[in-house]
Amino acid sequence: MALRAGLRNKCGLSGLLSQWFSCSNHGRVCVSPFLVAQQRNNSTSPKIKVDFNQSTGVALMCMQSPPVNSLSLDFLTEFSIAVEKLEMDKTCRGLIVTSSQPKVFSAGLDIMEMYRKSPEHCGEFWKAVQEMWLKLYSSNMVTIAAINGSSPAGGCLMSLACDYRIMADNPRYTIGLNETQLGIVAPFWFKDTMMNTVGHRTTEIALELGLLYKPSDALTVGLVDQLVPEDQVLTTATQTMTKWLAIPDHARQITKSMMRKPTIDKLTSNREADIQNFVSFITKESIQKSLGMYLEMLKKRKG
Amino acid sequence: MALRAGLRNKCGLSGLLSQWFSCSNHGRVCVSPFLVAQQRNNSTSPKIKVDFNQSTGVALMCMQSPPVNSLSLDFLTEFSIAVEKLEMDKTCRGLIVTSSQPKVFSAGLDIMEMYRKSPEHCGEFWKAVQEMWLKLYSSNMVTIAAINGSSPAGGCLMSLACDYRIMADNPRYTIGLNETQLGIVAPFWFKDTMMNTVGHRTTEIALELGLLYKPSDALTVGLVDQLVPEDQVLTTATQTMTKWLAIPDHARQITKSMMRKPTIDKLTSNREADIQNFVSFITKESIQKSLGMYLEMLKKRKG
Amino acid sequence: MALRAGLRNKCGLSGLLSQWFSCSNHGRVCVSPFLVAQQRNNSTSPKIKVDFNQSTGVALMCMQSPPVNSLSLDFLTEFSIAVEKLEMDKTCRGLIVTSSQPKVFSAGLDIMEMYRKSPEHCGEFWKAVQEMWLKLYSSNMVTIAAINGSSPAGGCLMSLACDYRIMADNPRYTIGLNETQLGIVAPFWFKDTMMNTVGHRTTEIALELGLLYKPSDALTVGLVDQLVPEDQVLTTATQTMTKWLAIPDHARQITKSMMRKPTIDKLTSNREADIQNFVSFITKESIQKSLGMYLEMLKKRKG
Repeated sequence: MALRAGLRNKCGLSGLLSQWFSCSNHGRVCVSPFLVAQQRNNSTSPKIKVDFNQSTGVALMCMQSPPVNSLSLDFLTEFSIAVEKLEMDKTCRGLIVTSSQPKVFSAGLDIMEMYRKSPEHCGEFWKAVQEMWLKLYSSNMVTIAAINGSSPAGGCLMSLACDYRIMADNPRYTIGLNETQLGIVAPFWFKDTMMNTVGHRTTEIALELGLLYKPSDALTVGLVDQLVPEDQVLTTATQTMTKWLAIPDHARQITKSMMRKPTIDKLTSNREADIQNFVSFITKESIQKSLGMYLEMLKKRKG
Repeated sequence: MALRAGLRNKCGLSGLLSQWFSCSNHGRVCVSPFLVAQQRNNSTSPKIKVDFNQSTGVALMCMQSPPVNSLSLDFLTEFSIAVEKLEMDKTCRGLIVTSSQPKVFSAGLDIMEMYRKSPEHCGEFWKAVQEMWLKLYSSNMVTIAAINGSSPAGGCLMSLACDYRIMADNPRYTIGLNETQLGIVAPFWFKDTMMNTVGHRTTEIALELGLLYKPSDALTVGLVDQLVPEDQVLTTATQTMTKWLAIPDHARQITKSMMRKPTIDKLTSNREADIQNFVSFITKESIQKSLGMYLEMLKKRKG
Repeated sequence: MALRAGLRNKCGLSGLLSQWFSCSNHGRVCVSPFLVAQQRNNSTSPKIKVDFNQSTGVALMCMQSPPVNSLSLDFLTEFSIAVEKLEMDKTCRGLIVTSSQPKVFSAGLDIMEMYRKSPEHCGEFWKAVQEMWLKLYSSNMVTIAAINGSSPAGGCLMSLACDYRIMADNPRYTIGLNETQLGIVAPFWFKDTMMNTVGHRTTEIALELGLLYKPSDALTVGLVDQLVPEDQVLTTATQTMTKWLAIPDHARQITKSMMRKPTIDKLTSNREADIQNFVSFITKESIQKSLGMYLEMLKKRKG
């Protein structure tokens, strides 16, 4: 209980935290599947709030980039730096990732980073997506995703890169790699991460159809590990972390590396080719037109 | 409803179609596991009836080779040519494979193609089996198996090569790779296809014991995706196809290729060796004797 | 029934066998997870009793090394020799492995073989662990584990190396690869064997947390294939063996090899490196200290 209170205070976002535990309805919040037209936000306020509890050795990372924690280049850069800092702090043994935005964990990649942008910019952006995944999937820390909202596409990838996934049991939330629904394709390392979690056949059907799963279905196929009422996601994550931290770090880390290294090596040894592949795909005129139509649709929905 | 009616008419086999939806009992029909001693049929009537609905972009392929759609060299050649034709027609986006024979989808490889035949003939036959699988497993079309009868061995392989499997919920039907029960062995690409569908352990136990699953068990282990009453197999396949075709072709095709290419490459780069392996195994005197005994048994059963 | 009686008699351990079918409580028996400080036993009595029933072609291997069938160098050597002898006897087609010790199948590797021992001794010991696994996992015989007690770590590995696992449905028994709980790491071939059985994700979470499963949970994740009341473990194993032996040996053996060869080849081609890896890890002073503390704890528990 003390720990729970401690985490709440550490987050320093009492207003936002109260939103996690309620069904706030902001009306304007638009959780679009996969791609998000992020409102430009030039403020220098951090998109991610990190609170490290030295007594427990656990860091809480609150994603707080309105409206839907879309993964922009700035967001991803800040995310990777934050994870790396914690990684280098040997007293930090565990990391809980959650959202302070209502109804959404992360809505995925920011469409504005790839619409009518130069190949150079698209390449830089994709490298940041790779970096986020590499940092999380290979982390020596115990990483737990406290999924307190919808988590499509890039948000799902972020969750899958953690060691354990606890999701709010709210049937209005969904999670999945739904790229094909938008005419784009999840790259091989998204696919590999999903296969390592739910197996070959479930991945095949999920990726080909771009399935978004309700929490109960996500639990059935193994996309998440546990469902709890929405107001217990963070406390359950904290309790679960205690269980994981009871295992000697050294043995757990070697074991984790043994399980994940082949998948990580596949990207690190093909990183540049993967970037080139993304850039040449996303800058195609046909794909840019699709993105443009999608953006128009989002604007109308908001209007 | 219109589509359903359309498909029925297109198939042009009203007599045969009525058999799908009833439990016809021809008495003489012999659904033997895996190998079939096909009655020689020198007629030039097609073994496969293809109806392509241009308004939906979906082709219905009815296997109509009495008595049990056994996979003879002629049958396989006709099958592969039919698939290739549809593949090259860019207006054809989906393919439903089903049977017009009562109680059986396909009873598997035709034993007569490998009994007391020359190594050359056996090799040509095996190449045709490979070709059928390669065509289906790598198809750019959405492929759905409407499994309206038993589907052992080669029939199971054909089903597994599709994107989705809907089976009639009739406990008298079975499906599985039952080769070991007859003293022969499913080759590595049968095994790979099954592993991609149901995982390593289920494949291990299924192949070692040559298990034939009832529909309910097949659903439990994931060998089929859906069970419906026998008279709804085709309509469900048509409805499911609509769902799959809602996904942009290009994204779905790249995703499908990403999932299946490693498995396909394994055969294409070892195709000749796999043929030699089959020929040297099947032409062994001990195996030929087993086949002979099996043929005798089939004859007695029919008599 | 006759067969069951035959097996009981053949085992020639009426006293011990009666313990299988009861919940004997010896009080002093210490089933510690993973590592066991085996009481030195310099007697020349065999640690494994093998009874081969020539009429059925099935051998029953009773592990009878008090108190908990810990896998010492002597035990492992005797085990591998016994399996090899049966393997070379072409009339022996099936092998059932079980325990004559109350409440335990095998408690895993003997800690005394790696505590304050020379690198040479540790290396010799590890080679014997490898050999046990290689012999079982690649056996041409049908191998069934009749798991009539707890089976942590090395005991679990032995079970996983068999073709089929039947466990006593006693909630006080556990099974799993719990190495990390003790600060050590299951090597890659333990991991591969488990992945082949329960898949990637279950293995990841099980190995990172060092999970020991109750029988009902072990069945759910697929770590065992069947649960039966404790007094029916051996009879069920015998009945199951009959089913497996109905499959022609030759086809089953080729199929088994096809499924397991890649996993076996990975160890055989890295065997020396795997030994060096183990020796350099286990002889670290920090690991030796952990083992020492563990031994002290075991002594106190016994005292």
